[in-house]
Amino acid sequence: MTESTESAEERLIARHLRPLATHPGALGLRDDAAVLTPPPGCDLVLKTDGVIAGVHFFADDPPDTIGRKALRMNLSDLAAKGAKPLGFLLALALPAGIDEAWLSAFAAGLGDDAVRYHCPLLGGDTDHTPGPISISIAAFGAVPFGRMVQRATAKIGDCVMVTGTIGDATFGLRLRRDRKLAERWRLTDAMARHLEERYLLPQPRNALADAVLSHATAAMDVSDGLAGDLGKLCRASAVAAEIDVARVPFSNAARAVIAAEPALIEAALTGGDDYEILLTLPPERLAGFRAGAQAAGVAVTEIGRVQAGEGARFVDEGKPLAFARPSYSHF
Amino acid sequence: MTESTESAEERLIARHLRPLATHPGALGLRDDAAVLTPPPGCDLVLKTDGVIAGVHFFADDPPDTIGRKALRMNLSDLAAKGAKPLGFLLALALPAGIDEAWLSAFAAGLGDDAVRYHCPLLGGDTDHTPGPISISIAAFGAVPFGRMVQRATAKIGDCVMVTGTIGDATFGLRLRRDRKLAERWRLTDAMARHLEERYLLPQPRNALADAVLSHATAAMDVSDGLAGDLGKLCRASAVAAEIDVARVPFSNAARAVIAAEPALIEAALTGGDDYEILLTLPPERLAGFRAGAQAAGVAVTEIGRVQAGEGARFVDEGKPLAFARPSYSHF
Repeated sequence: MTESTESAEERLIARHLRPLATHPGALGLRDDAAVLTPPPGCDLVLKTDGVIAGVHFFADDPPDTIGRKALRMNLSDLAAKGAKPLGFLLALALPAGIDEAWLSAFAAGLGDDAVRYHCPLLGGDTDHTPGPISISIAAFGAVPFGRMVQRATAKIGDCVMVTGTIGDATFGLRLRRDRKLAERWRLTDAMARHLEERYLLPQPRNALADAVLSHATAAMDVSDGLAGDLGKLCRASAVAAEIDVARVPFSNAARAVIAAEPALIEAALTGGDDYEILLTLPPERLAGFRAGAQAAGVAVTEIGRVQAGEGARFVDEGKPLAFARPSYSHF
Repeated sequence: MTESTESAEERLIARHLRPLATHPGALGLRDDAAVLTPPPGCDLVLKTDGVIAGVHFFADDPPDTIGRKALRMNLSDLAAKGAKPLGFLLALALPAGIDEAWLSAFAAGLGDDAVRYHCPLLGGDTDHTPGPISISIAAFGAVPFGRMVQRATAKIGDCVMVTGTIGDATFGLRLRRDRKLAERWRLTDAMARHLEERYLLPQPRNALADAVLSHATAAMDVSDGLAGDLGKLCRASAVAAEIDVARVPFSNAARAVIAAEPALIEAALTGGDDYEILLTLPPERLAGFRAGAQAAGVAVTEIGRVQAGEGARFVDEGKPLAFARPSYSHF
């Protein structure tokens, strides 16, 4: 017999994923592996992060957002490291019963973001799973040789900066679980929608990567809560930080939630899924960084200072906040 | 409050995975991302593949073999592309109830292989999952610029070669599911153990990568069955191949199985998990390749020829074999 028939797995890849594999090194997803010529004078920045239905997203989320979220989580890390995206690998585990419409919408969202963020699909792996939908991405970026912005390099006296707004996604998740909260929090429809969308779809700050690379002493993306992630940055850098809670940037919607239920300030500062960049820079770099951020169209806010010592202190009207659970953790 | 406490996730990483992160670019797994300086003059070869409990391994397999298998599946692809391993990223999804002993054995096996194959852990992601244990790896290798050995470049007249032996793992899987088969197949204990071990733990042919790079016109790893994978190589290269079944290398154990149940020749030629290298090369390269393989300590066998046309034909004593299911597919 002549073995020239494509398997169902090959057909799935051909129909839904091959259109995303526009990079020549993806070899049309027809090879075992992809090939990438590193940009001259650059280091590669490597990151893997993934999403699992029921853990990081809801199985009935719009399928076009699910692949986007998985890719954007990784793009956010590349941005925080000052890296320019080069491409990604996709490991997809699908339960039986995923239909063509789901796959088609999933791939369309992912493909749209691959173009938007200049991060093409290079290769992948598809499997059936008895478990929930699981999407694992490994993303690659480039930084000039020796220049990746690390966590461990914050300096005493640095300004602590954060992009965008904090806490929206964790409030969005609570709303997604219990839509009656919108009433209790006295949110307008637009506010509720804003919070839910911030949970559904991160807005990675890749436009800011150049400014981070040029000005930051240290940076990381905020994915497990501002308080916990700043704690990690402080530990890695062997410094302390004092944050003025009054300066932490909140959206109007998050402000409304906190006004309705002041104890939720803790949720805003410790909840996950912000996908903003937390960075430190010397005060003399502040003006240059602000100019770069303005040019990139990304809001940045100075929220505190790096100090000698250890730990991240959050001070609200002169009073330190105590958190029951500083950071989101899977374990 | 001072946020200096490590999360449980950080402790898991610190205890079990940090010891594997020996590469300086892994930054002790203390950063968002890893950094890798590409070897000068090289392209990067990128691959992702993974294993899911109940799909690619049994949940009660020895935990030290599970991480090894996931890594070796990827190493096998790097070998087939002629690439030297540089390192890997690990995405680990663990159900509740995985204990320290499991994690410790899993990490020990993975760490041992990372050293053995010179492929250090660069970074990772750990999550809890409501589903089965899932381990996704993205592995990176290097080849001289422009030299990655592809699937699509086999030439008419080339010899078709394969490493090691074919079919052991698929018989090992059947034995693992039904140990009474050993009696039906009249296997010695050593033969049964050989087959089961071949399923449990691939033996990637990374020692052969240099010889593949130097001599092969096309190559791929055999993971979804020799017949189906050769079919893919033929389709990609727009050629046909004729294989002499009498020349396909079988272990003594696989020969015993086929002697006891001749119809199982199809299972041997179409079953998955061989993790051997299938390659093509011009006849004038055969002696050089054989010398390289001997130096590398890897058995290689010529099994057929590349021809004009399409499809892979398997000919047994002059009669073409017809396969009901030429290739393992997840879909």
